Amino acid sequence: MNEIKKYVADHKDRFLDELFELLRFQSVSADPKYKPEVLKTADYIAGKLKDAGADKVEVCETAGYPIVYGEKIIDLALPTVLVYGHYDVQPPDPLELWKTPPFEPTLRDGKIYARGACDDKGQMYMHIKAFELMMQTNTLACNVKFMIEGEEEVGSNNLGIFVKANKERLKADVVLISDTSMISMEDPSIEVGLRGLTYLEVEVTGPNRDLHSGVYGGAVANPATILCKMIASLHDADNHITIPGFYDKVVELSQQEKTALNAAPFDLDEYKKDLEIGEEWGESGYSSLERTGTRPTLEVNGIWSGYTGEGAKTVLPSKAYAKISMRLVPNQGSDEIFELFQKHFESIAPKTVTVKVTPHHGGEPAVTPTDGNAYRAAEMAIEESFGKKPIPTRGGGSI
Amino acid sequence: MNEIKKYVADHKDRFLDELFELLRFQSVSADPKYKPEVLKTADYIAGKLKDAGADKVEVCETAGYPIVYGEKIIDLALPTVLVYGHYDVQPPDPLELWKTPPFEPTLRDGKIYARGACDDKGQMYMHIKAFELMMQTNTLACNVKFMIEGEEEVGSNNLGIFVKANKERLKADVVLISDTSMISMEDPSIEVGLRGLTYLEVEVTGPNRDLHSGVYGGAVANPATILCKMIASLHDADNHITIPGFYDKVVELSQQEKTALNAAPFDLDEYKKDLEIGEEWGESGYSSLERTGTRPTLEVNGIWSGYTGEGAKTVLPSKAYAKISMRLVPNQGSDEIFELFQKHFESIAPKTVTVKVTPHHGGEPAVTPTDGNAYRAAEMAIEESFGKKPIPTRGGGSI
Repeated sequence: MNEIKKYVADHKDRFLDELFELLRFQSVSADPKYKPEVLKTADYIAGKLKDAGADKVEVCETAGYPIVYGEKIIDLALPTVLVYGHYDVQPPDPLELWKTPPFEPTLRDGKIYARGACDDKGQMYMHIKAFELMMQTNTLACNVKFMIEGEEEVGSNNLGIFVKANKERLKADVVLISDTSMISMEDPSIEVGLRGLTYLEVEVTGPNRDLHSGVYGGAVANPATILCKMIASLHDADNHITIPGFYDKVVELSQQEKTALNAAPFDLDEYKKDLEIGEEWGESGYSSLERTGTRPTLEVNGIWSGYTGEGAKTVLPSKAYAKISMRLVPNQGSDEIFELFQKHFESIAPKTVTVKVTPHHGGEPAVTPTDGNAYRAAEMAIEESFGKKPIPTRGGGSI
Repeated sequence: MNEIKKYVADHKDRFLDELFELLRFQSVSADPKYKPEVLKTADYIAGKLKDAGADKVEVCETAGYPIVYGEKIIDLALPTVLVYGHYDVQPPDPLELWKTPPFEPTLRDGKIYARGACDDKGQMYMHIKAFELMMQTNTLACNVKFMIEGEEEVGSNNLGIFVKANKERLKADVVLISDTSMISMEDPSIEVGLRGLTYLEVEVTGPNRDLHSGVYGGAVANPATILCKMIASLHDADNHITIPGFYDKVVELSQQEKTALNAAPFDLDEYKKDLEIGEEWGESGYSSLERTGTRPTLEVNGIWSGYTGEGAKTVLPSKAYAKISMRLVPNQGSDEIFELFQKHFESIAPKTVTVKVTPHHGGEPAVTPTDGNAYRAAEMAIEESFGKKPIPTRGGGSI
């Protein structure tokens, strides 16, 4: 361990210089005008992987921005860790809110300020440097593979295609991702799960045209009202989702897992104060941390119907729409939940309207066991660094 | 009666010429560019009222377009009829759908085609000509007052002010309005009532900012969902409105009134086919004609919250809004119903959200007794002209 600490101390300035160099690339994937910069960043990462000692380094083309791959296989009998990261960043706007330029990294109070410094260039580069260090100090104890993409900030549309096409190459025992957050420096944590997603849109059609609410109101079902009734019925009085079969595959946490999860600091009063809400909400029998981490949800992300401009228009609308998403937990499947929703939503539609349910997109939930070697290794590393065991947390969203 | 028929026959061509002249005025109240035309129309009407024999003719200024007044008091002991009409018209767009120019009246198959021909210049001018005829043939049997406005198509914002300020001048026993429709030439009808209106907007606020539905979803009440639940609860399983006190002042029709009202031709299958709806809707125990004419309603005219654009955004919105209107029947008061709604809506809001209810505008319901002299006079006139007694109908909207 002393050898490792020495290596870090000896090379700290170079590590920082290189990270600053990486942070200067304007790798904004959302805006086509940055395309040359995004591509240069991929090449830079590939170079650094090679320098660190990776084999088979390749800038792999996709329909969008390339995915940088590299690996070091030292013994096929040893476990393999696949490191995921992304080299693209969000647009830096609004520029006027930056104290220092977004692509000119600056140290203030021991912290680095730059676009992408902690999402995800900082963490991704840390993994490359950790790999370099292990290569240089002969301490690499497993096989390592790197997969670093450039479209995380725009939906990772090509990542799934790449992964499916490269199953053998990417085969690993553990995936290591540092693209989420820890509770705090005082309460180190490891995110062990992410929820999946089924996102869809519903359309409720009443009469074939907008009607005058005076002439027809009272005798024709209003699709906005009907949609409200249908949405209202999707949660029962305990805020349990009413779609038949929705919870069938949901795994209840063990008491031990519940205890570990709820050990995370969480102050309900602070939470309510921060959001200015009178009361928290959610499924009866679960804490807020369980509700956001381990329980599936159903949310209205958007709803619209009729006249929504200034003033008054006495329209009885022909159509009403909503965007609805469900966060999923293991072992719920995105497509299966879509089908359950669709079937249920169609079944509860009264004869006065017709409904259409259209899928938008989905993602699968994931959770890592906390009793495996990989988690234990990470736990030990955190305990050694922070002097404290990490809290296993579950992320409510997806990456 | 022969004298009257002779007068009509002798002057028919002039009547038509004058009406065509009136229809040529581009009195579009919604578009300021037509202002000189609208003002000219008011002057034209005033002139015609004078020509017909009206006294005290005046183009009365308002904050908007003027109201034309004129009267003929023959005997204070006789009943007084106040004739309402409007000289403004809707914009003629889309112009390409007109077979002949909107402000160049054309006769086709015995019908006059022009903007405003039947809303409301035709009917309004018919009353002036009827008055002229009675003056010329010495058959006027009551006092007559005319109040003809120029802002009906833009909400009649100044009419109420004018009426309040001219209570004495406008005092009448009967108001005669020909700005609604008859069932058909085969089924003549008289509209004896109009519903009133309470129009308002609700705002439901959850967290103080839009949240990520992954990070917070499941633990924070979604105002869109809550609004849906609140709206859903405003009608019970019988589509009865659940606001306490809402029906307290509603008068039930007598069996005789029900029978007369339901004598209007109404084909439910045709109605459903026309609107392409699977089933009619409404309060249990009432026919569609009763539901639209004699029962109060509550409709969602607009609803919006969260993300309503293309594709998906996983937002847990901070706010949700709806525009809601209630059609009122005698003796419901517009302000009183607003207060009942507001109180109820606030009372059903869960602690997880705050709600705000804002009034938009209102109007009072009106109904004319069908057993009075005025109705009987109109009934006799229709029976003489059409060979058939009129059906008393109730209009669902307002003028």
